[in-house]
Amino acid sequence: MAHIIDGQAIARKMQAKIAEDVAVFKAHYGYAPGLGVVMAGDNAASQMYVRMKRRACGEVGMESFATLIDANTSQAEVEIAVKALNDNPAVHGILIQLPLPPHIDEEKVLGLVSLDKDVDGFHPVNIGALAMKGREPNFAPATPSGCMVLLQEVGAKISGANAVVIGRSNIVGLPVAMLLLKANATVTICHSRTADLPGLVRQADIVIAAIGQPEFVKGSWLKPGAIVIDVGTNKVDDASTEKGYRYVGDVEFASAEPVAAAISKVPGGVGPMTITMLLQNTLLAAQRLAAK
Amino acid sequence: MAHIIDGQAIARKMQAKIAEDVAVFKAHYGYAPGLGVVMAGDNAASQMYVRMKRRACGEVGMESFATLIDANTSQAEVEIAVKALNDNPAVHGILIQLPLPPHIDEEKVLGLVSLDKDVDGFHPVNIGALAMKGREPNFAPATPSGCMVLLQEVGAKISGANAVVIGRSNIVGLPVAMLLLKANATVTICHSRTADLPGLVRQADIVIAAIGQPEFVKGSWLKPGAIVIDVGTNKVDDASTEKGYRYVGDVEFASAEPVAAAISKVPGGVGPMTITMLLQNTLLAAQRLAAK
Repeated sequence: MAHIIDGQAIARKMQAKIAEDVAVFKAHYGYAPGLGVVMAGDNAASQMYVRMKRRACGEVGMESFATLIDANTSQAEVEIAVKALNDNPAVHGILIQLPLPPHIDEEKVLGLVSLDKDVDGFHPVNIGALAMKGREPNFAPATPSGCMVLLQEVGAKISGANAVVIGRSNIVGLPVAMLLLKANATVTICHSRTADLPGLVRQADIVIAAIGQPEFVKGSWLKPGAIVIDVGTNKVDDASTEKGYRYVGDVEFASAEPVAAAISKVPGGVGPMTITMLLQNTLLAAQRLAAK
Repeated sequence: MAHIIDGQAIARKMQAKIAEDVAVFKAHYGYAPGLGVVMAGDNAASQMYVRMKRRACGEVGMESFATLIDANTSQAEVEIAVKALNDNPAVHGILIQLPLPPHIDEEKVLGLVSLDKDVDGFHPVNIGALAMKGREPNFAPATPSGCMVLLQEVGAKISGANAVVIGRSNIVGLPVAMLLLKANATVTICHSRTADLPGLVRQADIVIAAIGQPEFVKGSWLKPGAIVIDVGTNKVDDASTEKGYRYVGDVEFASAEPVAAAISKVPGGVGPMTITMLLQNTLLAAQRLAAK
């Protein structure tokens, strides 16, 4: 029986500490750390994420600012929104809610975010530093950092471990692979073209599943005693629930739980950590800017 | 018996094509593509590499410019040298010979190179693009690109292959892992903390050895039929040679050659490709700048 990694509880504990630090910051400087969010389009999931992030800011005593732009916006409009947040002294962290509409040049927009305010760590320069040995980004992306905290909380030995990352997205798979490598894991990056995924997963001491496929990874693939971080949050129909659906991860929990040493919950695993790491980065940005 | 990958011959063929293209470029624009090199310190290997690069430029009809600075230089002096090359219209590609002296901030210097002239691909923004899915750097680093050309020349099936990269240096290991991933290989990055290197190598269809340890990887570790690219160039004593030394790779050639399907030579494998890719990137930079 695996230890169930309760991201909700870990996030609650961390957010309580962040709220204390925010109170100290406010008492010292007379203003609160502020997060600015840029969102373009009306993607329902994105709208929900932005609402959750703003609510979390309020709960720890931070300010939040949202620039909501129509889906049919222009590149110039999105860029102006980012620059306005760069110039706004009440904004210490900037988050571009991804994905942007397909006609917007995402890489260019991310590259406009002030390096001092890049709390999501997606500025190309921060990604470059994340990928390189001996360099540190100003901020590491939130979801991958949250995965690392969950591993630390469960006492995972990362250095020298075989870590298999399933999925190579820019938001989770690639940056989490880089963080694991910085922590001296041997890292294998798997994806849709991988020939024998079960065979590779079977050798992993640490499995990070981030492919967005409901219950794709089976318990029979796991090495007994593996530590499993499930980043997926997939909506599946379930007539037995009041809403008619529920959320499941990328890992088949029922079959994985008896084999793994530890496994994160979905929902309530990585999800709450993402917001927590964003709050922590925003506080850090405000502290650094105040000290300049 | 493995096919021996002759980087020297492949480089010669590619450089002949580059020389033709340079001649066309000169006839059209009235000037030659130019490479500017910045070197600080008196590292003997670096001096040799700079000489080899300048000689290769001459052989294909390119100009080359070298800024040689004392080891006890200041950060400001190195930065001024880079900026001068940025501003010099006769220089289309800039190479910072690494390593810089330890008191120089390498990341900062690399970040000053004009993105249009970053033919070694080590500007943080280019590394960031290299690491990300769906993005392309202006230029990919020379040695890793040379490894990819050798794989293509030998007809390696990269997509879906298990590729094991041994070594995670910023110059070879990390960027070649990213190039392999972009080509849809399943990539495992191994290093000094890796627990069971022979076991991991045994599963690899493609092995890239880049650790700088003479004959470290043994033939018994290889999967029969693997394709091996040996990036190492290690000087070892050999009383039987005229000079008293010879160069060996990171792979024990004698034991690997009977097991591998193909293996690159040392010397004469990856080494000549590095210079070739640098020349190719410099030509490309000149073509792009001329078209602006």
